[in-house]
Amino acid sequence: MMASASRLSLSNFHRPPPSTTIAELKPTFTPHTQPTNPTPESDATPSCPEPRKLKPSPQLNRWSRARAIRSGHKLDRPVSRTKAWEMDPPARSPETEVLQSPPRARDDDGELAAGKSIYMVSDGTGWTAEHSVNAALGQFDYCLVDRGCPVNTHLFSGVSWHFARGLILLIFCLRNAISKSLFIRYLRRLGLKFSPFQRLLEIIKQAAKEGAMLVYTLADNSMAESARQACRLWGVPSTDILSPITEAISSHLGVSPSGLPRGAPGRNFPLSEEYFQRIEAIEFTIKQDDGALPQNLQKADIILTGVSRTGKTPLSIYLAQKGYKVANVPLVMGVALPKMLFEVDPEKVFGLTINPVVLQTIRRSRAKSLGFGDDARSNYSEMDHVRKELEFASRIFAQNPAWPVIEVTGKAIEETAAVVLRLHQDRKNKCSMPRISKRY
Amino acid sequence: MMASASRLSLSNFHRPPPSTTIAELKPTFTPHTQPTNPTPESDATPSCPEPRKLKPSPQLNRWSRARAIRSGHKLDRPVSRTKAWEMDPPARSPETEVLQSPPRARDDDGELAAGKSIYMVSDGTGWTAEHSVNAALGQFDYCLVDRGCPVNTHLFSGVSWHFARGLILLIFCLRNAISKSLFIRYLRRLGLKFSPFQRLLEIIKQAAKEGAMLVYTLADNSMAESARQACRLWGVPSTDILSPITEAISSHLGVSPSGLPRGAPGRNFPLSEEYFQRIEAIEFTIKQDDGALPQNLQKADIILTGVSRTGKTPLSIYLAQKGYKVANVPLVMGVALPKMLFEVDPEKVFGLTINPVVLQTIRRSRAKSLGFGDDARSNYSEMDHVRKELEFASRIFAQNPAWPVIEVTGKAIEETAAVVLRLHQDRKNKCSMPRISKRY
Repeated sequence: MMASASRLSLSNFHRPPPSTTIAELKPTFTPHTQPTNPTPESDATPSCPEPRKLKPSPQLNRWSRARAIRSGHKLDRPVSRTKAWEMDPPARSPETEVLQSPPRARDDDGELAAGKSIYMVSDGTGWTAEHSVNAALGQFDYCLVDRGCPVNTHLFSGVSWHFARGLILLIFCLRNAISKSLFIRYLRRLGLKFSPFQRLLEIIKQAAKEGAMLVYTLADNSMAESARQACRLWGVPSTDILSPITEAISSHLGVSPSGLPRGAPGRNFPLSEEYFQRIEAIEFTIKQDDGALPQNLQKADIILTGVSRTGKTPLSIYLAQKGYKVANVPLVMGVALPKMLFEVDPEKVFGLTINPVVLQTIRRSRAKSLGFGDDARSNYSEMDHVRKELEFASRIFAQNPAWPVIEVTGKAIEETAAVVLRLHQDRKNKCSMPRISKRY
Repeated sequence: MMASASRLSLSNFHRPPPSTTIAELKPTFTPHTQPTNPTPESDATPSCPEPRKLKPSPQLNRWSRARAIRSGHKLDRPVSRTKAWEMDPPARSPETEVLQSPPRARDDDGELAAGKSIYMVSDGTGWTAEHSVNAALGQFDYCLVDRGCPVNTHLFSGVSWHFARGLILLIFCLRNAISKSLFIRYLRRLGLKFSPFQRLLEIIKQAAKEGAMLVYTLADNSMAESARQACRLWGVPSTDILSPITEAISSHLGVSPSGLPRGAPGRNFPLSEEYFQRIEAIEFTIKQDDGALPQNLQKADIILTGVSRTGKTPLSIYLAQKGYKVANVPLVMGVALPKMLFEVDPEKVFGLTINPVVLQTIRRSRAKSLGFGDDARSNYSEMDHVRKELEFASRIFAQNPAWPVIEVTGKAIEETAAVVLRLHQDRKNKCSMPRISKRY
């Protein structure tokens, strides 16, 4: 369906001049200083049920609402904001000033507990915005969900002409019997308007209503400019993630950026050697999982070994995504290790170890999810067994001093992967400045 | 080994006051305006052989060297640079000005072809820097490796006290019999000095020498400040990726960032529900690969179907990493599809399709790498067979109109994943503003 859609072209489907977009659309927005939906729950996303992962504690909600009532604050934040976090704040027009209210006192109690929102908008996949926000949020995890200041992120990806055109054509192809007005009504019901500029402004409008901040990665310059203007106009704090780095690279290379988001026509992903290498690595790693096919260990770039639940599988998969063929060999007491493990280059073998208490917690959770009976569980997750198995692993590691042993306790998969790759590159390159290099 | 190292504490291992770092270290650096190694090949990383992925075409090198000689340009760029791409350029000290030469004319020919370098420095995993640079480079792919302006990226991760301390302790534990001077010499040979500030400055010095630009994600404020100062001093164009978004979020939440990079002590990764969910999704997806265990299709969040080599496996794995349980069912002519596929909720089934010419190219490469004989190859990758199989898939898709069909031609795995998740969320939430939401 999408296949045929993306191959068609709609000649009368032109992009409007970006300079007119804000002006055209401005009158349609009335700032909701007095929200029509007085309850905070219904205000944020009127027709949208909360997705699975969003489970705000009812107790927390009651508590924050009670505090808000006591303090006289509204939980639904008004549209006007204190400060726009643009790196280069332009002078505000008088019109903008009218829309803006004076700086507001911070309400650290009720509102924080209710959860702040971060909107992420992208004309591509949105993964860069998600990744960057996730990394930055890492510095606030001391106060996130469990400590009373949860953050909700909302990713709006594919806000681009390409996506809009593809989707409209898709629907058009499916419903070409319907009348134009019905077609437009159908589109509106989906929340999609013809122009991605309109979609962008709808999102920013919603962000203003919800008191959210906006983070955007918009390769198309006119889209980025529209986002900037709309955020300034409606007082939404915003950060452009992509432009600073794109501009810096542009200046460094001495060439201009294409302005095309990922997935745009004319920006087809090439079937490069790297692409095939990555696919091959993933397929190799899946086949090699959990000690399967030990005869292939020789072909692996990296071999991981450790007792059950040290995270060998997810780590293997993460490294495979980066183009490394990974094999993992479990260490199980009483089960002989494949001979091949001791015959391969020891420089590519990595041991994983973990704190026994943490391992027991993970194994208990695992045993529960697998529906193990009490007997099986005791053998697998009881402290005595866990300790013995870790000692067994330690002895094997001691017998193979060339294998680095990585402590995975309290590390995310990405962190362990970074350590493995750092050591892998250092050992391979014997480099005075350890680095992971790549050619584009 | 690292396990025991990270559990130890070194009481006399204090962090020096950051303000003194640059001043202390400055005299050790003499700008290499006249490089000691006259050939560009040996100048960049004297003791470091190029890693596997870096295979500059000899023809390209000869060509660029010839052009450089003709134009009188040096291939090894001098240390002084035109512009530091700091978002908030502070006033330069007179001392800085002395070190800086006047803006240089751009040399678009020889130097571009030789390949420009981007250094990425992180006190964490470095994946945010890598991801952002990769996304930004997407806008220059019209001129990257195949078009004569290759870019080399070099990732230096774990440039932090935590990492330095861990590694030093590791070596100390291993070699505690050796003398202090031998120990320090050993460390120097590894290119590691005691202070991550020193390591940071070494990297920036090398970037200046190589004419590279610097991109950094340093959670530790004093490290970020040192990077900024050193880059300004040595004329290295630099971009701070993390600070703008961290500051914006800090202001939005009304709390300060911890300043701790990933993997730092006290920033242990929690064993959250999300962590277990992700691991479970990866394990489910691996077991379910290539149509295995069709009785489990019911348990999947997303089911992908398509003919061989439409990228079902890498796409499944990518989505699994994001916490979705994915099953993939191959469509093979003459092989009956599992009944369960038509019994599950059709809203979670996605068809993949691809251009036959591209599919043939991919299959040929696959057949070659698998070492298929000519007979087997003809059946698998011949155009007639490819077309028939795609028609067979189309018929199945037509019989199941509720399955969206995604065209994967020319799309990276990440792009197809974005489309799948967008549709998945839209269908699940019936939301007026399609979005992917998450709670932190």
